Amino acid sequence: MVYLTRREYFNGAHKLYKADWSPEKNVEVFGKCANKHFHGHNFDVFVTVKGNPDPDTGFVINAHALSKIMKREIVERLDHKNFNLDVPEFKNIMGTSENVAIQIWKWVEPHLEGCQLHCVKLVETENIYVEYFGEEK
Amino acid sequence: MVYLTRREYFNGAHKLYKADWSPEKNVEVFGKCANKHFHGHNFDVFVTVKGNPDPDTGFVINAHALSKIMKREIVERLDHKNFNLDVPEFKNIMGTSENVAIQIWKWVEPHLEGCQLHCVKLVETENIYVEYFGEEK
Amino acid sequence: MVYLTRREYFNGAHKLYKADWSPEKNVEVFGKCANKHFHGHNFDVFVTVKGNPDPDTGFVINAHALSKIMKREIVERLDHKNFNLDVPEFKNIMGTSENVAIQIWKWVEPHLEGCQLHCVKLVETENIYVEYFGEEK
Amino acid sequence: MVYLTRREYFNGAHKLYKADWSPEKNVEVFGKCANKHFHGHNFDVFVTVKGNPDPDTGFVINAHALSKIMKREIVERLDHKNFNLDVPEFKNIMGTSENVAIQIWKWVEPHLEGCQLHCVKLVETENIYVEYFGEEK
Amino acid sequence: MVYLTRREYFNGAHKLYKADWSPEKNVEVFGKCANKHFHGHNFDVFVTVKGNPDPDTGFVINAHALSKIMKREIVERLDHKNFNLDVPEFKNIMGTSENVAIQIWKWVEPHLEGCQLHCVKLVETENIYVEYFGEEK
Amino acid sequence: MVYLTRREYFNGAHKLYKADWSPEKNVEVFGKCANKHFHGHNFDVFVTVKGNPDPDTGFVINAHALSKIMKREIVERLDHKNFNLDVPEFKNIMGTSENVAIQIWKWVEPHLEGCQLHCVKLVETENIYVEYFGEEK
Repeated sequence: MVYLTRREYFNGAHKLYKADWSPEKNVEVFGKCANKHFHGHNFDVFVTVKGNPDPDTGFVINAHALSKIMKREIVERLDHKNFNLDVPEFKNIMGTSENVAIQIWKWVEPHLEGCQLHCVKLVETENIYVEYFGEEK
Repeated sequence: MVYLTRREYFNGAHKLYKADWSPEKNVEVFGKCANKHFHGHNFDVFVTVKGNPDPDTGFVINAHALSKIMKREIVERLDHKNFNLDVPEFKNIMGTSENVAIQIWKWVEPHLEGCQLHCVKLVETENIYVEYFGEEK
Repeated sequence: MVYLTRREYFNGAHKLYKADWSPEKNVEVFGKCANKHFHGHNFDVFVTVKGNPDPDTGFVINAHALSKIMKREIVERLDHKNFNLDVPEFKNIMGTSENVAIQIWKWVEPHLEGCQLHCVKLVETENIYVEYFGEEK
Repeated sequence: MVYLTRREYFNGAHKLYKADWSPEKNVEVFGKCANKHFHGHNFDVFVTVKGNPDPDTGFVINAHALSKIMKREIVERLDHKNFNLDVPEFKNIMGTSENVAIQIWKWVEPHLEGCQLHCVKLVETENIYVEYFGEEK
Repeated sequence: MVYLTRREYFNGAHKLYKADWSPEKNVEVFGKCANKHFHGHNFDVFVTVKGNPDPDTGFVINAHALSKIMKREIVERLDHKNFNLDVPEFKNIMGTSENVAIQIWKWVEPHLEGCQLHCVKLVETENIYVEYFGEEK
Repeated sequence: MVYLTRREYFNGAHKLYKADWSPEKNVEVFGKCANKHFHGHNFDVFVTVKGNPDPDTGFVINAHALSKIMKREIVERLDHKNFNLDVPEFKNIMGTSENVAIQIWKWVEPHLEGCQLHCVKLVETENIYVEYFGEEK
């Protein structure tokens, strides 16, 4: 087994705000992230797959093919988008990095052939990132 | 003369959209940045000052003091803010990195003592940054 | 399970020197790190916790709360400190990155609620880092 | 158990080209990497070992000793080399990052004492890296 | 005047070898870079332009337009290429980073409108980069 | 003219403490940096030289030769050293980054042939760096 990781990135906006809480409670829990006018990040997303290198090509997966899947399934949906307003999946659940990483797994996993999805890592700032390894871990 | 640079950072949202242009023209000129629902970035801001090191302290400026100025004059105004909606200076001019850098110069310059402001550098993504050296350059 | 990682940093000084060894043996084993006058590093520390995102907040842990724990339990103890002279825990054991990482685990672990500590990663230079996953791994 | 990671780097050239395929098929599968005149990368290699810190030294392994092993076993073989033409191990198998990582494991593993090899990570570009954890994983 | 910088990157191969010198002299002057089978790098190229922000757009130059120029004039010529064998401009002059930077200036400069080329910076490794500011500086 | 920059690094310890000031005044001015037991940093040092590329070699300076000068003149003097106690030049002047950069200029400048020293940049943390361009600038 070899693990291959590919990075892509996107710039998004979101706010962390729960509509059925008071503004005060939102600020207490989410701090500055509750600003009703949104804020944003340069997100880096790392997708790791695992498999045995193909004897002919030496590839676990063609990194260029993985890039195409990531651009189509992740970047087109999230780049220069407002997660709260533009992305249906985050209409009813918080668009935190945790939930975005889980959603990215769901978007990418069905499109991989010949290897398994191992990890989705989402870097929100140089100081915070999350990793999701699927339901079983 | 020695030049000292201090970095701080903030996360903001903006859109590049000119109200007196048609939506089509906005997309033509600004591309994805024209999304009406905003997008955002992790901005790094580097302020460079120049001066002669103080013979007692060896400092051009106390970097901790510079950090305090930057946090008060820049970060408090822009962090987790929507430049278009929350920052008065960008109500009527585009909140591009170019214009934000010029504005940061205006905010910081009056508060420096014993040294001169040399450069404001604003990093929008790992691929794009701007620098402003004041009106004379 | 989602894993969330938060970074903080501190600048420390230490020397690697075993008092009951001869100076020659210390230099043989620890090389330049045995300099009796100390040397130092900019340490980055990454704390990773794991848990299920809260259905309300979408958080495994509030990253701001984790930052406060890390600043209080790690940064206040180690920042601008001499590990050999200022930190009681390293009076009798070597303040190597390995031992510092284990000690950070002990300091942080009791303060986490609603999630588990998964990893302490300590980056000593761009070329060397250590990771500790607790006693069981 | 503590995990210690050491980085070294080297600059190599390679091409991805399968001699028993047509030029067209090579371009179809390997894209620009099939250029017959080669291209190259700045590779970063991270070797992670695991073990219990020595009670005397506080080391899982002396990072300087690990560096010497890596320079002798990896850097001398691959730095400023053409993998296809200069490295016997890649005469008959593709010099992809996957296969280079597996080979690095084989070169380094026999030379470690008092700790176990855990991972070889090879970073090909800022967007692509591979990890190999040995045959059992 | 505001300065805007855009980064692109490419992976190339080259060797530093002067045909009318003996192999021994080549190794003496160029060291490992003289390997006849080539070696390569991940090059980062930063192009800096200067100008006054457009009052309508707030742009010195549209960073997306600059990216297109850089991809067409630089990346298409150098990415996954062997400078010695594939790039006519380096048939008779050494493909050092110094000379590549000067050549990139010549390729990019004629295509800029409404702003001036200020600097071409070429990063060869994390430890070496060159900058060229045009003939007058 | 082309500018070439080479990076080296070293790990040092220092304290900012003025002996003829009271402990209280030292803490007031230097904050945590006044800790009598020292603290330390991973310093990156970038030396930039300028000149015309040699028509034969394409080099402003052989980067390997520049590295040797930097290792001998800078790294051997400062690496794993305590600036206050081990480096004669900082016995009587503060070992701030400003003063260290000026001193590095004095150490390196006499050893350059065929090119001019342009800048010494010293990076103390990811948030603070200084640059010195010689006495005339």
